[in-house]
Amino acid sequence: MSKFWSNELNKLKPYVPGEQSNQIIIKLNTNENPYSTTHNVKKVLKNFSIDNLKLYPDPDSKKLKIAIAKKFNINYYEIFLGNGSDEVLALAFLTFFRNNIPIIIPDITYSFYTVYCKLYNIKYKLVPLNNNWEVDLTAMNQKNGGIVFANPNAPTGNAHKKSSIIKLLSDQKEHVILIDEAYVDFGSESTISLIHKYPNLLIIKTLSKSYSLAGIRIGFAIGSKQLIDGLKIIKNSFNSYTINSISSAVALSAIKDEKYFNKNCIAIIYTREKIQFALENRKFELLYSKSNFIFVKPINISAVKLFIKLRKLGILVRYFSNKKLKKFLRISIGTELNMNKFIKNIDYLIIN
Amino acid sequence: MSKFWSNELNKLKPYVPGEQSNQIIIKLNTNENPYSTTHNVKKVLKNFSIDNLKLYPDPDSKKLKIAIAKKFNINYYEIFLGNGSDEVLALAFLTFFRNNIPIIIPDITYSFYTVYCKLYNIKYKLVPLNNNWEVDLTAMNQKNGGIVFANPNAPTGNAHKKSSIIKLLSDQKEHVILIDEAYVDFGSESTISLIHKYPNLLIIKTLSKSYSLAGIRIGFAIGSKQLIDGLKIIKNSFNSYTINSISSAVALSAIKDEKYFNKNCIAIIYTREKIQFALENRKFELLYSKSNFIFVKPINISAVKLFIKLRKLGILVRYFSNKKLKKFLRISIGTELNMNKFIKNIDYLIIN
Repeated sequence: MSKFWSNELNKLKPYVPGEQSNQIIIKLNTNENPYSTTHNVKKVLKNFSIDNLKLYPDPDSKKLKIAIAKKFNINYYEIFLGNGSDEVLALAFLTFFRNNIPIIIPDITYSFYTVYCKLYNIKYKLVPLNNNWEVDLTAMNQKNGGIVFANPNAPTGNAHKKSSIIKLLSDQKEHVILIDEAYVDFGSESTISLIHKYPNLLIIKTLSKSYSLAGIRIGFAIGSKQLIDGLKIIKNSFNSYTINSISSAVALSAIKDEKYFNKNCIAIIYTREKIQFALENRKFELLYSKSNFIFVKPINISAVKLFIKLRKLGILVRYFSNKKLKKFLRISIGTELNMNKFIKNIDYLIIN
Repeated sequence: MSKFWSNELNKLKPYVPGEQSNQIIIKLNTNENPYSTTHNVKKVLKNFSIDNLKLYPDPDSKKLKIAIAKKFNINYYEIFLGNGSDEVLALAFLTFFRNNIPIIIPDITYSFYTVYCKLYNIKYKLVPLNNNWEVDLTAMNQKNGGIVFANPNAPTGNAHKKSSIIKLLSDQKEHVILIDEAYVDFGSESTISLIHKYPNLLIIKTLSKSYSLAGIRIGFAIGSKQLIDGLKIIKNSFNSYTINSISSAVALSAIKDEKYFNKNCIAIIYTREKIQFALENRKFELLYSKSNFIFVKPINISAVKLFIKLRKLGILVRYFSNKKLKKFLRISIGTELNMNKFIKNIDYLIIN
């Protein structure tokens, strides 16, 4: 508290990111990719002309947009880039949701969404997940000033049927429907192909997870030109140059190495399926994940106890003290090797 | 315009950054540093472990803060880092100025300040420069919800007396006084030493100009712990990880090379003094600049005509069509070599 703070500030509870720790041997708590990005990035950094750094970056990052557009078979002006998908989300909330009609958000999802609402005084309404712990797109199909959900959802990890999303898009055309596809590359289906049919559809993506590039902070939105143009006005009223020159070059090289990207995603999916099977065999309850993490409920031990025991062994997973989530742990998918070690430690802990 | 945009959006006029062009031979329009950053940055990029990029950066960028704290002889918790000083400014306006009392801004200054006000519906009052084209700190010493000015000012380039700043700080203790020191390293005096006496003083700095690092997007604020803590709450409600890992490592290496930094600043100051003298001899009116740019009024030709003629010769300077500024050109200080060419072209144009 300080007399120099705005009133809003005293009420804000910021998002709390997962712990970053040096004492951890196996880090499975922040949904990072356990594998390195393409080796081409090494060459980019080695050959980068430091003389360029004296200049401001291209405020439109056009080269990178053209590469992304090519990958998704869209136009470069249907892309908005940001300093991580969190920034893209923050600017999207500011651009589209200050309309005094509550926006609809699932009650269990990425917790940053409601933080943005509080930051900007945006009204929102939480809709509970259904009995299968799925985002209830039917219940969310109601009067709204905007709709926000993640596909797959976090921290539950499950994906939604494309038909349910299309039903929602067909019924709700007055305000922006924002779908956060941060985890979509791990086996579920993107809705990018729908942007030309639904001009109010905004899709958020990131290079942090599937491209192993959480460190460079590049996220983007894909949507109709009118949505992207709106985002650009807000961004240019906030910070003209949000994408630094080095991250832009790194991202470009990673986007172009489609083969490495696919191999990396397949490795995660393979390990995830194995680990889900192994945990089911050890009597964990789990939701069927399409993400690079799994959301599991241990049966013979409480989640918090297991979290603490794993931590003592140098294995960090994510525990949420929130009432609805406290029976679960969210476990990021690590390397095949580390996940085998993880299972061995689980066996050791459950026996002891 | 789009039905999906918020009402505020339709009224916003974003900041327009200086033109980035490939057809230009001598670029003197965006106040970039004409010299490269320290060569140590090359080593940082060459040796950067790309494996680190799969992980999120340290959300607090503590290593970099410690290096900055050492340089300025302050504590690391008196520093707030952002994705360029524009982001730091944008977040500072959101943190401190939503209090319904108009903030005070000079009528001629960095044009982004009023853009932030419009973005966040912050009330503001413009105070004209005095007859010497100086920020009128005496007139600005009035009831306020905050005070914002740049020292040196932009685009005028002149610096303020420390005694006038101290008088203002002594009289106005209720709200934040934000001093943008983006250009302070080119020969004027910082007020950093005053932060322990005045807990409402917030100083904004950047690596874009004096460190030749516009491309990496690192800016920072320095102030009392209570101000920095407020900024952190807003930042963590907006984007947990605003500083990417590579820019952070590059910045650290540049901050540590104090010798190169000093040499670079001295070179700019030397050229600026020479160019001011040369233009005075050619009957240009000029304000006495303490920045890496000069603000000049050509006498025998209009500013816009000279701007166009220079552009045809491949020399880009900044022209503002704004009524009060349209008689002036803002010229960034380039290399010694390029500024000699610039003067030769001026001679050629004035004769022809």
